[in-house]
Amino acid sequence: WVGEFFPEIPKIKYEGPNSKNHLAFKYYNAEEVILGRKMKDWFRFSVAFWHTFRGTGGDPFGAPTKHWPWEDGTNSLAMAKRRMRANFEFIDKLGVEFWCFHDRDIAPDGKTLEETNKNMDEIVALAKELQGSKIHPLWGTAQLFHHPRYMHGGATSPEVGVYAYAAAQVKKAMEVTHYLGGENYVFWGGREGYQTLLNTDMGRELDHMARFLEAAANYKKKIGFNGTLLIEPKPQEPTKHQYDWDAATAANFLRKYGLIDEFKLNIECNHATLSGHSCHHDLETARINGLLGNIDANSGDPQTGWDTDEFMTDIAEATKVMLTVVKNGGLAPGGFNFDAKLRRESTDVEDLFIAHISGMDTMARGLRSAAKLIEGGTLDNFVKKRYQSFDSEIGALIEAGKADFEYLEKKAIEWGEPKVPSGKQEFIEMIFHSAL
Amino acid sequence: WVGEFFPEIPKIKYEGPNSKNHLAFKYYNAEEVILGRKMKDWFRFSVAFWHTFRGTGGDPFGAPTKHWPWEDGTNSLAMAKRRMRANFEFIDKLGVEFWCFHDRDIAPDGKTLEETNKNMDEIVALAKELQGSKIHPLWGTAQLFHHPRYMHGGATSPEVGVYAYAAAQVKKAMEVTHYLGGENYVFWGGREGYQTLLNTDMGRELDHMARFLEAAANYKKKIGFNGTLLIEPKPQEPTKHQYDWDAATAANFLRKYGLIDEFKLNIECNHATLSGHSCHHDLETARINGLLGNIDANSGDPQTGWDTDEFMTDIAEATKVMLTVVKNGGLAPGGFNFDAKLRRESTDVEDLFIAHISGMDTMARGLRSAAKLIEGGTLDNFVKKRYQSFDSEIGALIEAGKADFEYLEKKAIEWGEPKVPSGKQEFIEMIFHSAL
Amino acid sequence: WVGEFFPEIPKIKYEGPNSKNHLAFKYYNAEEVILGRKMKDWFRFSVAFWHTFRGTGGDPFGAPTKHWPWEDGTNSLAMAKRRMRANFEFIDKLGVEFWCFHDRDIAPDGKTLEETNKNMDEIVALAKELQGSKIHPLWGTAQLFHHPRYMHGGATSPEVGVYAYAAAQVKKAMEVTHYLGGENYVFWGGREGYQTLLNTDMGRELDHMARFLEAAANYKKKIGFNGTLLIEPKPQEPTKHQYDWDAATAANFLRKYGLIDEFKLNIECNHATLSGHSCHHDLETARINGLLGNIDANSGDPQTGWDTDEFMTDIAEATKVMLTVVKNGGLAPGGFNFDAKLRRESTDVEDLFIAHISGMDTMARGLRSAAKLIEGGTLDNFVKKRYQSFDSEIGALIEAGKADFEYLEKKAIEWGEPKVPSGKQEFIEMIFHSAL
Amino acid sequence: WVGEFFPEIPKIKYEGPNSKNHLAFKYYNAEEVILGRKMKDWFRFSVAFWHTFRGTGGDPFGAPTKHWPWEDGTNSLAMAKRRMRANFEFIDKLGVEFWCFHDRDIAPDGKTLEETNKNMDEIVALAKELQGSKIHPLWGTAQLFHHPRYMHGGATSPEVGVYAYAAAQVKKAMEVTHYLGGENYVFWGGREGYQTLLNTDMGRELDHMARFLEAAANYKKKIGFNGTLLIEPKPQEPTKHQYDWDAATAANFLRKYGLIDEFKLNIECNHATLSGHSCHHDLETARINGLLGNIDANSGDPQTGWDTDEFMTDIAEATKVMLTVVKNGGLAPGGFNFDAKLRRESTDVEDLFIAHISGMDTMARGLRSAAKLIEGGTLDNFVKKRYQSFDSEIGALIEAGKADFEYLEKKAIEWGEPKVPSGKQEFIEMIFHSAL
Repeated sequence: WVGEFFPEIPKIKYEGPNSKNHLAFKYYNAEEVILGRKMKDWFRFSVAFWHTFRGTGGDPFGAPTKHWPWEDGTNSLAMAKRRMRANFEFIDKLGVEFWCFHDRDIAPDGKTLEETNKNMDEIVALAKELQGSKIHPLWGTAQLFHHPRYMHGGATSPEVGVYAYAAAQVKKAMEVTHYLGGENYVFWGGREGYQTLLNTDMGRELDHMARFLEAAANYKKKIGFNGTLLIEPKPQEPTKHQYDWDAATAANFLRKYGLIDEFKLNIECNHATLSGHSCHHDLETARINGLLGNIDANSGDPQTGWDTDEFMTDIAEATKVMLTVVKNGGLAPGGFNFDAKLRRESTDVEDLFIAHISGMDTMARGLRSAAKLIEGGTLDNFVKKRYQSFDSEIGALIEAGKADFEYLEKKAIEWGEPKVPSGKQEFIEMIFHSAL
Repeated sequence: WVGEFFPEIPKIKYEGPNSKNHLAFKYYNAEEVILGRKMKDWFRFSVAFWHTFRGTGGDPFGAPTKHWPWEDGTNSLAMAKRRMRANFEFIDKLGVEFWCFHDRDIAPDGKTLEETNKNMDEIVALAKELQGSKIHPLWGTAQLFHHPRYMHGGATSPEVGVYAYAAAQVKKAMEVTHYLGGENYVFWGGREGYQTLLNTDMGRELDHMARFLEAAANYKKKIGFNGTLLIEPKPQEPTKHQYDWDAATAANFLRKYGLIDEFKLNIECNHATLSGHSCHHDLETARINGLLGNIDANSGDPQTGWDTDEFMTDIAEATKVMLTVVKNGGLAPGGFNFDAKLRRESTDVEDLFIAHISGMDTMARGLRSAAKLIEGGTLDNFVKKRYQSFDSEIGALIEAGKADFEYLEKKAIEWGEPKVPSGKQEFIEMIFHSAL
Repeated sequence: WVGEFFPEIPKIKYEGPNSKNHLAFKYYNAEEVILGRKMKDWFRFSVAFWHTFRGTGGDPFGAPTKHWPWEDGTNSLAMAKRRMRANFEFIDKLGVEFWCFHDRDIAPDGKTLEETNKNMDEIVALAKELQGSKIHPLWGTAQLFHHPRYMHGGATSPEVGVYAYAAAQVKKAMEVTHYLGGENYVFWGGREGYQTLLNTDMGRELDHMARFLEAAANYKKKIGFNGTLLIEPKPQEPTKHQYDWDAATAANFLRKYGLIDEFKLNIECNHATLSGHSCHHDLETARINGLLGNIDANSGDPQTGWDTDEFMTDIAEATKVMLTVVKNGGLAPGGFNFDAKLRRESTDVEDLFIAHISGMDTMARGLRSAAKLIEGGTLDNFVKKRYQSFDSEIGALIEAGKADFEYLEKKAIEWGEPKVPSGKQEFIEMIFHSAL
Repeated sequence: WVGEFFPEIPKIKYEGPNSKNHLAFKYYNAEEVILGRKMKDWFRFSVAFWHTFRGTGGDPFGAPTKHWPWEDGTNSLAMAKRRMRANFEFIDKLGVEFWCFHDRDIAPDGKTLEETNKNMDEIVALAKELQGSKIHPLWGTAQLFHHPRYMHGGATSPEVGVYAYAAAQVKKAMEVTHYLGGENYVFWGGREGYQTLLNTDMGRELDHMARFLEAAANYKKKIGFNGTLLIEPKPQEPTKHQYDWDAATAANFLRKYGLIDEFKLNIECNHATLSGHSCHHDLETARINGLLGNIDANSGDPQTGWDTDEFMTDIAEATKVMLTVVKNGGLAPGGFNFDAKLRRESTDVEDLFIAHISGMDTMARGLRSAAKLIEGGTLDNFVKKRYQSFDSEIGALIEAGKADFEYLEKKAIEWGEPKVPSGKQEFIEMIFHSAL
């Protein structure tokens, strides 16, 4: 393959909201400063190698539909290298600075683990070279779910040999992420979960998972990798129950096993909605537990019960996401990874760009609206005022844990029936939507 | 009201599976010993005062439908006493030894908190007398959701006056539960949650909730109440998000605020399924977190998105519940509370009995099937064997936290591709269902 | 009650998008012409009497929270009259021209049907007078679900006496709607459905429902009422299964019983989403079946499994709704009824106005965005072009039912492997969202 | 491949409920007469070639896991023949008399449609020979969803070339089904649906689908095929909306386009539950519309939002299914097809047998329980009695469409407030479950 992979795609530029050019940004303006920070620094957008370069369009009912011109139908080392070059041309044209990968996306399996690792080294050396100084991984991760050996899980497989194999694989993936300058390392619990409780010792499996993550945290320190370790909650799929169901479940696990200071969370919007929460809820849950580390910026279909991994287009949702991100002081060293895929039926090369542009513009509109709300002040002031009765002497006593039931009973009798003002949800929603 | 409340209902007896008498037990035989314990001691069944004696059949679209002969249409003290007498006749005829109540179910509100508490004292004195020596509360609780003052929550209300009022109410409810010999005290988070994140400071509300529960735990010790404090998870309804979403969420909360040793959980099956889990899952989650304290034995409709609080009739579900209960060594001092209500359209007095008999027989079939499975051994042996590769030297190292990634990588390379046996889900389901 | 009901609320005016006045329209400008029609004629907004004037804030877990100053706590005729006057002041200040009602909302039950009808006549006479020449009902309907007599349904009750009573009630409600100049009459199947199939003869119940609706259509003609009869689909709640599950289910029923030309549908967005469809889907299904007659403009919570009846705030959803309405050539004699209620916690009188303003502005933004899309042409042209291969000779043969399998097989062999272009979903979503 | 495919599996025999042999039937006794018919004639069980012989265990997150010894890793004609021989050995050992297939499961694609058809002919000739006189297809169907050409649908593709190709494929599949003695032909609308309404002309697509099915019905007659044409409803997956959403939706479509007498429905339990109904509901809906033709006997996970296609194990569900089947007078020429697959993690050859045995025994328990209920009479009598007020003179008038609103009003006034008895849901559920 000689020359450009995307010869018909120009470098994507900001042209403003009135542009009709579908290959331009209308809202995302990388260097523009919003709320005291450049847009690109709020977002730290990342391209997901697996969806963008390994997504085939196959689904449980159908064969692959994508026939990218650079693909030769093999899973050879040569193909892996060519694909990696395509990746960096894509990143460059899109104008982002991060990418994310699973070990097995970027390099083919060998016949043995050593051979596999050798393949990986060869590809990673090329990636390092192509990255240059400006681009590096937002995070890397190990694919512990595709190969049949992981059919019962990796760290939670009932087979000790699989546990060891998974450990070896994560070890290598962490090394590689570190080598490439990755800023985080992610654990998505692929098949860590169960299909039926009848054949499962859930307690023992969770103990194993804890030991595995503990060993990972130790190894990270050993190799001097300073990136954040991130757990990515998901409730179901592929298993009936994934152990990292949602942010609260993952937090309970981390607390139970003394790992709460070693990990943060990578919240994926579509995973949040599958678990019965709004994306905003799971982000806030992560935030108030001190665990919000990264966002997988995608979206599901509200009427669909599986992970559709769509690029987010809902500007109200994006605005809520950004309200949380701003409250969190940003996400760095985390960022926004597009764990989102083209629809199976989108088969033009330009669709890859359109989808990312649309996703970036949606998030950018979210930031702009969030900034309007924050600078307007009405939203925050309303919430603050709502709790003002606790900004009192007795409120302070309560919040300090010094108000016992006897004292509170005395107060309750003294005060009589409390006044309870309107929650004014419709008003606050009006304020919110008027900023969109 | 003179004489019996249920003159046409005999004392319910065990008549065995061939009985056609709908006012007899076919499976529940209180004194029969199963797995080394009397059935009644495995279950410790409890009648829920609110559903059975305050359930009106009203729903969001319709007026009350129940016109029990002993009700006079008032909420007077006299009516409260008459109802309490009906309750104990019901309990006696059903042949159980426990009941559960909310403070506001059993006694009417007065004009002030003091007056309300006085009403309560009067009713509670009667209840104490009617209980005799054999019957007492499985648990008591405070109703912090019905009165408009609690529309934004009790412990998590933005109004400090409401927080204090709630504290005073819980204080009294704990005292009363203690006085009646209650064995547990439950916190169901009524309206502790939010309708929209836009008007809510979730972090601050959760802090308040923690302070509240801490004060409750302190007060319990102060009054010498030795019962277990139980949190009852529920994901939604009445609020869009209830803070005690599911067992894992509640556990995370308890761990975060240092309350994990002070509380256990009361798992309700219909709440579990509304949160996207099987009932069995949330029971197991509670159990392996050391938190399984009580079960609200009811059931939802699998196609319905709200709490239908039906009496459980699914014998497979009941068997799974009992497998967990046996693993837990039973539930005492907890038990099975029938937090279940007659359908709105069930308006005969005998329906109250039929529903409870059906619920008790279902659980009893569950216990009998579980016993068959446990005594047969196939199920447990299968699971044990599935993990046997961890019952090895290296398995022990891993489980002790002594196997680091370098060691595991060495092993993985040494062992080569691991063998992964079939999960045999269909086989184990065949075994399971053959016991029903 | 003397004087104004809403003395602090001015007549709501259009002030444009930059207004910060929460008691003004920012997008809804009644007289402004969009796509060749005045905004008010596209929408024909209607206030729902039941939610706005009979909504108490009660829910299954809590007592009423609204304490409107004009309510005296009774359900007297005098109160009904006062409330009706409040209704028309509200309508006047909001600047709409339609209202909707259930018979039992507006007038109290008497001891007998005759007395009830007499009460109704008295209130309706007042309403007629208050309506003046500009205002009249978008539709009326009968409340066949609140009273215990309807606990098993009205037209589908197993009791023939209930069937007759329901018929008598609908008869009167149709007369009253006609008398007030109503333009439609709605059948929402309250409790027409089942709680369990085990006690239900679904076939017989559906036969009864058909006979009932047939009789209604006949009576309409007899009294010279020219309004449209509308069925309002809903999947569940209060029953486990409502017979008018969704648009397609209602259409099947109408076709099966030969009623397809006598009825149209009133699509409610929250009902659509509860049935697993997007609102847009059920509107389009109604439209292409020739049945789109009216819209109940509300919205549910995407993570909540019951009818929350919120005012719509989602501008993307509103835009899709309006794309369908424009394709339908508008809705008249139907319109948009706000079958939406204040949140239980919204207890200020002004919240009633804010909620309606927000709902109207959301729909107005939807219309403006839809107009942008329609006038821009990209969306329609894209879809048209997508099917252009059918605008061919063979396409015409197929669409005329003249292409048999043998002919098509010949063509398939002749043509070889067909080319299938990208569906370009991300592109079309980008176009769509750029109009918001 | 010489000799047996399943040398370690004996012919599966009935050994009764006490047998511990997991390769024996405990409840299914083919020749035993229940309710006047042999069990095998009630069920007409069929093996689904695609799941049982083409299921690989692959899922969206993982590679195939099944490595059946007879598979050589190719999709050659030779492999197709070997697989077909395995199929008939499986059928013989299981002791059933029917199988179902998609055209593309059983024979490989060629380079052109003609070549593909030639492959098919070769395989079909072998199948015919292997069938002998006792075995034949319950139904055949065409796979119009796997190949990328069908990514936008077959009959509803926007490309006329795809429509023609689909027609040619169905033509051949119908011929082949007829040739093999198939008793039905099924249309599962693979990708007949949409991913987004924004790029879709739903009305035109449905018109095309109608023309397609009309042509199929015509062709059936032309070739003298007397089998039933069956539509298989499914709500979602792979598309966001499948046009044959549920039984009622399919019925509406058939009625709208005048096809109601040409087609029946194939109800799949897991599809029913995904559409928000119980399986029992969709079966009853099909039955009372005169459309119940066949059952795809499988089951989903009640907490999972996608089609899990599990073998049914729920005996209560199976009993409800059989109550409907008996009311329908059986299903012939339809039957029960096991559209169910092994879990991905079930990788032993014997698991294929265990799963089918378990599924057949579950249905057999369902039949036995249904017979107990029917012979007991309590259930039917209860339902009959519940509607007895309609077995009156006025009931007859209503049911004949002769009771107008004026007459009914007169009756309602004459009768006064109707009496409404208890629905006794708990009682009837007790009766139902006592038969299990």
